[in-house]
Amino acid sequence: MTVQRRHDPELRGFASDNYAGVHPEILDAIALANGGHQISYGEDAYTEHLQEVFRAHFGATATVYPVFNGTGANVVGLQAMTERWESVICAETAHINVDECGAPEKVAGLKLLTLATPDGKLTPELIARHAWGWGDEHRAQPRIVSVAQTTELGTCYTPDELAAICELAHRHEMKVHVDGSRIANAAATLGLPLREFTTDVGVDVLSFGGTKNGMLLGEAIVVLNPDAVRGMQFLRKAGMQLASKMRFISVQFEALLGGDLWLRNATHANAMARRLADTVRGLPGLRITQAVESNAVFAVLPKDVTERLQKRFRFYSWNEHTGEVRWMASFDTTEYDIDTFAAALAEELRDS
Amino acid sequence: MTVQRRHDPELRGFASDNYAGVHPEILDAIALANGGHQISYGEDAYTEHLQEVFRAHFGATATVYPVFNGTGANVVGLQAMTERWESVICAETAHINVDECGAPEKVAGLKLLTLATPDGKLTPELIARHAWGWGDEHRAQPRIVSVAQTTELGTCYTPDELAAICELAHRHEMKVHVDGSRIANAAATLGLPLREFTTDVGVDVLSFGGTKNGMLLGEAIVVLNPDAVRGMQFLRKAGMQLASKMRFISVQFEALLGGDLWLRNATHANAMARRLADTVRGLPGLRITQAVESNAVFAVLPKDVTERLQKRFRFYSWNEHTGEVRWMASFDTTEYDIDTFAAALAEELRDS
Amino acid sequence: MTVQRRHDPELRGFASDNYAGVHPEILDAIALANGGHQISYGEDAYTEHLQEVFRAHFGATATVYPVFNGTGANVVGLQAMTERWESVICAETAHINVDECGAPEKVAGLKLLTLATPDGKLTPELIARHAWGWGDEHRAQPRIVSVAQTTELGTCYTPDELAAICELAHRHEMKVHVDGSRIANAAATLGLPLREFTTDVGVDVLSFGGTKNGMLLGEAIVVLNPDAVRGMQFLRKAGMQLASKMRFISVQFEALLGGDLWLRNATHANAMARRLADTVRGLPGLRITQAVESNAVFAVLPKDVTERLQKRFRFYSWNEHTGEVRWMASFDTTEYDIDTFAAALAEELRDS
Amino acid sequence: MTVQRRHDPELRGFASDNYAGVHPEILDAIALANGGHQISYGEDAYTEHLQEVFRAHFGATATVYPVFNGTGANVVGLQAMTERWESVICAETAHINVDECGAPEKVAGLKLLTLATPDGKLTPELIARHAWGWGDEHRAQPRIVSVAQTTELGTCYTPDELAAICELAHRHEMKVHVDGSRIANAAATLGLPLREFTTDVGVDVLSFGGTKNGMLLGEAIVVLNPDAVRGMQFLRKAGMQLASKMRFISVQFEALLGGDLWLRNATHANAMARRLADTVRGLPGLRITQAVESNAVFAVLPKDVTERLQKRFRFYSWNEHTGEVRWMASFDTTEYDIDTFAAALAEELRDS
Repeated sequence: MTVQRRHDPELRGFASDNYAGVHPEILDAIALANGGHQISYGEDAYTEHLQEVFRAHFGATATVYPVFNGTGANVVGLQAMTERWESVICAETAHINVDECGAPEKVAGLKLLTLATPDGKLTPELIARHAWGWGDEHRAQPRIVSVAQTTELGTCYTPDELAAICELAHRHEMKVHVDGSRIANAAATLGLPLREFTTDVGVDVLSFGGTKNGMLLGEAIVVLNPDAVRGMQFLRKAGMQLASKMRFISVQFEALLGGDLWLRNATHANAMARRLADTVRGLPGLRITQAVESNAVFAVLPKDVTERLQKRFRFYSWNEHTGEVRWMASFDTTEYDIDTFAAALAEELRDS
Repeated sequence: MTVQRRHDPELRGFASDNYAGVHPEILDAIALANGGHQISYGEDAYTEHLQEVFRAHFGATATVYPVFNGTGANVVGLQAMTERWESVICAETAHINVDECGAPEKVAGLKLLTLATPDGKLTPELIARHAWGWGDEHRAQPRIVSVAQTTELGTCYTPDELAAICELAHRHEMKVHVDGSRIANAAATLGLPLREFTTDVGVDVLSFGGTKNGMLLGEAIVVLNPDAVRGMQFLRKAGMQLASKMRFISVQFEALLGGDLWLRNATHANAMARRLADTVRGLPGLRITQAVESNAVFAVLPKDVTERLQKRFRFYSWNEHTGEVRWMASFDTTEYDIDTFAAALAEELRDS
Repeated sequence: MTVQRRHDPELRGFASDNYAGVHPEILDAIALANGGHQISYGEDAYTEHLQEVFRAHFGATATVYPVFNGTGANVVGLQAMTERWESVICAETAHINVDECGAPEKVAGLKLLTLATPDGKLTPELIARHAWGWGDEHRAQPRIVSVAQTTELGTCYTPDELAAICELAHRHEMKVHVDGSRIANAAATLGLPLREFTTDVGVDVLSFGGTKNGMLLGEAIVVLNPDAVRGMQFLRKAGMQLASKMRFISVQFEALLGGDLWLRNATHANAMARRLADTVRGLPGLRITQAVESNAVFAVLPKDVTERLQKRFRFYSWNEHTGEVRWMASFDTTEYDIDTFAAALAEELRDS
Repeated sequence: MTVQRRHDPELRGFASDNYAGVHPEILDAIALANGGHQISYGEDAYTEHLQEVFRAHFGATATVYPVFNGTGANVVGLQAMTERWESVICAETAHINVDECGAPEKVAGLKLLTLATPDGKLTPELIARHAWGWGDEHRAQPRIVSVAQTTELGTCYTPDELAAICELAHRHEMKVHVDGSRIANAAATLGLPLREFTTDVGVDVLSFGGTKNGMLLGEAIVVLNPDAVRGMQFLRKAGMQLASKMRFISVQFEALLGGDLWLRNATHANAMARRLADTVRGLPGLRITQAVESNAVFAVLPKDVTERLQKRFRFYSWNEHTGEVRWMASFDTTEYDIDTFAAALAEELRDS
C-alpha cells in the first residue's frame, strides 16, 4: 500500500467528538456492503432497508434521506419545510446560526430570527418574541422553530419541554425542526426511546447525526411529519447532498441503529463527560457552567490554567472574554483519558 | 454485527461506474487512518499531506480542497471563480447543465450559456458564439468556459484542443474550469501525466473525480491557478461540502494518487470499454456512435434488442428517440463480464 | 425651478420604445392622484380600484400586482409559480434569457431551458424537446412555459397558437407565463380584447407592460389563474418590487387601461412600424426579416448603410454577423419621423 | 381623462412620510424632462448630469446609481460591497433586518448579525461583539457595518459617532454602509452639509432616500469610496432595479438636490415633529421615548387613548406590549395638522 499512517492512533483529546475516528463495527459494515454493483443515488438495497430501520425508531410515518453532513441535513431539511419568503426561529447559539458560514441564508435564502438563551434552550416564552407578523409582507414570515437536541451547550430538552415548543409552534401553523447531530446523546441522557421525544411530542423534521457518534461520515434527514415538507429528493440533489454510492452511508446507519451501537456509543460518551465533571467539580478556581446532560462539559477556569492545559491536551476555548472552555468526550474516550486529564487539570489549578 | 449483506457481491452491470463499490486498497487506507483523534475540518495530517500528493501530479501552484461529491466540486469551484453576475459557457450535455437539478443556478446563481455539440466537446468556434457582451449590464457576463474531461459522451480532449480553448478564454479574460469526474480515464487514454493536459495547457480550476474511480466517496477541487479563485474555504463550507472527519476522504485520495492506483483503475476500465466496443462493432443492427476514448461505449441498436438485453443486464437508455444506449465499464469490470455481455448482445441482435 | 431641460423634446429615434417619454394623459393622472396622504405599499384607493380595471380586461379571476419594471414582473411572477427546484422553458431570444443579467437564475434560482426559434415563437413541438423528466431528481423540473407576446422579434402569437401551448403545458401539469411587456401591441395587431388571447386560452400569469406603452414607469403582474401562484405579495416585497407610494404607479395604469389609451398608443406605434416596413420593403439591398406584427421592424442591410444611417438616426444593430438591425416605433413616433427616416434609408441604400 | 380622483387631497395623517404625495416642484421637473427620446437605462442627459449634482454634495469621488426603492438601494449596495460568504453587522431594529421580507438574505445571501440597542444606534462597543472571527471558515465573515441615518427610531448620529464607527470598521477591514432613507432629515437636524457626516467621516456607501422626502419614487446608491464596491451596474440590473426611462428618476433627484428643496422639505418635516413633541411633552399619561432628532416622535401612552385617537387620525402602534406609538411628520404636514392633532391627543388623555 502506498499510504502510510501519519498519526498516533492512541492519542485522543477533548476538542470535539468529530476528532474521533470510525467505530470498528461501522468499518466492518462498510466492508460488508462492498463488492458488486448497486444502483447509485439511493436506489440500493441498503438504503431501501434503511427506511425500516428508522421507522423502528421513529414510527411508521418516518422517511429517511441520508446526506453527507450536518449543515447539509439542516439546510436541505429547512428548505423543504419553507417557502422562499419564510424565516426560522432559533437560539443565538444554534449551529445553523454560528457555525455554517451563513449556508441557511446563502443557499436557502432563509432569515434566522435569533434568541439569546442562558443554556442554549428555547422556551415558548422566548419563541413568542419572534412569533408574530404573519400576513405582513414586510416581514420574512416565521415558519420554523429550530432547536438542537442536545444543544450546542450540552443541555438536553425534556420531552415536556419539546412538547410545549411543538404546541406553541403548531398553534401558529409553524413547524418544528430538530438539529439532532447529538440526538443519540439526548436519548442516553433521557433514558428514552428516540420517538418519545421526537415523533411523539410533535417534532416535524429531524437532522439525525451519525458522524459524531462513530460513523465515518453521514447524517440523515428524518421526516416525521410527511405534510411538513415538499420536494425533499429534489432539494437534496440541488443542495449537493446526494451521494452516488449511497449504500456506504446507509449501511453505516444500519450498523448504528439496527442494534444498539448508537446507544452504546452515546451512553459511553455521556458517561465519560459526567466522570470528568464529577471528578473536577469543586476544584478551587473552576466552575462548571452548564448542566452536564450530554458528552460535553463547559467550565470557567483561569486563563493561565487553560493555556498550560492546552499545551498538554487539545480542547477549545469557548469564550475568550469569560474564560469558558469546552471539553468533549466521544465514543472512544477512555476512563484513563478522563482520569489523566482530570489529574492534570487539578495539578494546573493548584499551580495557578 | 447487526448488519447483513443485502446484495450479490459478484453481480456487476454496465449502468454506471458509480454502481461499483470501493477498491480494496481504498478500504485499507481508511482503516489505516482510523483510530485516535485528528483535528476535524481538514486540519488533519492526511489532508495536509494531500497537498504534496496533488502537487506531484499538477505542479507546485496546485492547491487541493476535498469535497463530498461532483456537484459540490463543480458548484463550489465555479462560485470561487465568478462574481455574482457572471455566467458559464458549457456544452448542452454538460453534467452541470443536465444532471445537477439546477444546483449551479440555485446555489450559485450562475447562468449557463449552453452549446449544442456532436460529441460533447466544446471548440473555440462554438465558444465564440457566447463569448461576447462584456460590459453590457443586461448580459450575465461570460467568465468561465467549463469543459468535461472526459466528456459525458465518453470523448476525450487532446492537450492541443484544451490549449486552444484556454487560449481563447484567457484572451477574453475568461477562466477555464474542467469537470474531471473521469479525468483519470482521460489520462489513461492520452497516455500522459495529468498536468500535461491541465496545468500545462492553461486550465485554471479542476474538479478531480475520486468516486467513479474506486473511492467510497470524495471529489477534490484542484485550484491550478491561484489567481482564478477567491474564498475557496468559505465557499466550501457555505456550500455544505466541508467534511468534519476529512482525514477519511483525504486518505482515499492518497491511496489513489500516492501510487498508480488511479491509473490502474482507469486504464482497466477503459480497456474493458474498448474490449466491448471491439467485440461488438460491426454486428448487424448496431452502430457505435461516439469515439471510445474512456470507459463508456455509446451505441444505437433496435429498441426490442435493448429491452430484452436490459432484462438480463443493467444499463441505461441514453436517448429514447434515437435508440441510443450507454454501456459503462468500471474498475471492477472483468473480461468475463464483457465477454458474457457481448455474447448476449450478439445473440439478441441475431434474434431481432 | 432649479432644473433645466437638457434634451431636445422634438428629437425622436428608432432605438426603442423605452426611449420615449410619458404620454401627457399619464402625467395628468399622476397629478390628479397627488396631494393628501394615502396608505403606502398598495393599500391606497387607486391600487384598490385597479383590481376592477384589470378584471374588466382579463376577467373576474384576475388579480393585479403593480411592480417597478419588466424584469421585476417576470422574476417575481416566475418565482410565485415555481418551487425552488423547478425550471422554465423559453425561447433562446427571450428577454428573461438574454436581457436580465441572469436575474431569473440569480434572484430566483431558476434554470432556463432554452430553445432556438426562427421567429422568437415557441411551438408545442419545440416545447416538447424540454418537456420531460418529471420525477427525476437530477433534472431541474420543468414547470413553466414562458412566452413573450409580442415576441422580442416583433412577432405575434395567434390565440390558437397560445391555446395549443397552454394545452400542452397543462397536460404536463406545467403552467404558462406570458411576458407581455408589449402585450398592448399584440392586442392591436390581433384586433382582439386582451382576455381572448390570455385568460381565455389558458394563460396562468402575465407580465403586463406599461412603460413601453407610454407610462413613466410601471409594470404589473396579472395572475389569471389563482391556483398557479403562491406568496405573490411576499415575493414582490422580497423581490424589491413593492413601491411605497404605489398610488402613482396604479393611477398610471388606470389612465392607460380605464379608457382606450393603451390601445390607441399601441395601435399608433404598430401603424408607424408598418408604415416604415411598407415604405422600404423592396428597396434594393434591404430585406425585412420578420413579420411586422407589432411596433418593430427587423431588416438586413449592408453594414456601411447601417453605419451611415446610425450617424443620422438612433437605432440598434441586432446581429453584428448578419447585418440585421431593429427599428422600433413608439406611441409618439410621427408619420413625419417615419417618412424622413425612410427617405434617408433609401438615400443611403442608393449610395451604397 | 378616464381617471378620477379617489382620495381627499386635504387629508393628512401621521402614519408615515411615505403616505405623502409628490412635491409640486418634483412634478414640474418630471414634466420638464418629458418629450422627445432619451437613451434608456441611464445613458440619458439627466442621469449624466446627476453625477455632478451628487458630487457637489458628497465630493469628487462620489458616483450615483439611481434605483427604484430603499430595499433595492440597500440590497444592491450591500451586495456590491461583499463577497458571497460575508455578513453585515446592524441594529436589531434596522430596516434591512425587520422591514424587507428577508431580501438581504434571500436576494443577496447575506447573513445579518444583529445587535439590540436602546435607541437604534450602533456604537463601537456594540459592533465589537460581532467583529471577530475573520479567517474562520465556519463563520460568515463580518464585512459591513450598516447603520441608518437617521435611525428607524428617529435618532441621529453625530459626525463623531459615525467617525468612531468608521474607524473601528476600517481597522478591521470592514466597510461602512449607511441606510440614508431619511438622511436629509439628519442633515437638517445636524445643520451640516451632507458630506461632513458621510464622505468626510469615512462612510463607504450610502443609500440616499428620495421618496420619503417628496419624490414620486426613487432612491440612489451613492458610492463614496470607489474601492468599496464591485460590479455596481451589473448588480443593479440583476437586482431588478434598473429603470428604463431613468431620466424621470434622475430629474427628480436634480429637483431635490440641485437647489435646496431637499433641505427645505426635511427641515420642515423635522420642525413639525418637534412642534408636536414640544406641545405634548409633559401631558399626564404620555412619555416621549426617543430623542426627537428627525421627523418622528415616539411615545408611550395608554392603549385606550391610542385606540380612540387612531379612530380620528392615522398613525402606527410601534410596540403592542409597551403601548409605544410612532407619529411621523412629512414635507406636507402643516402647523394646523400638528396643532389639531396635539389638541385631540390632549383631549383623549384627559378622558383616559
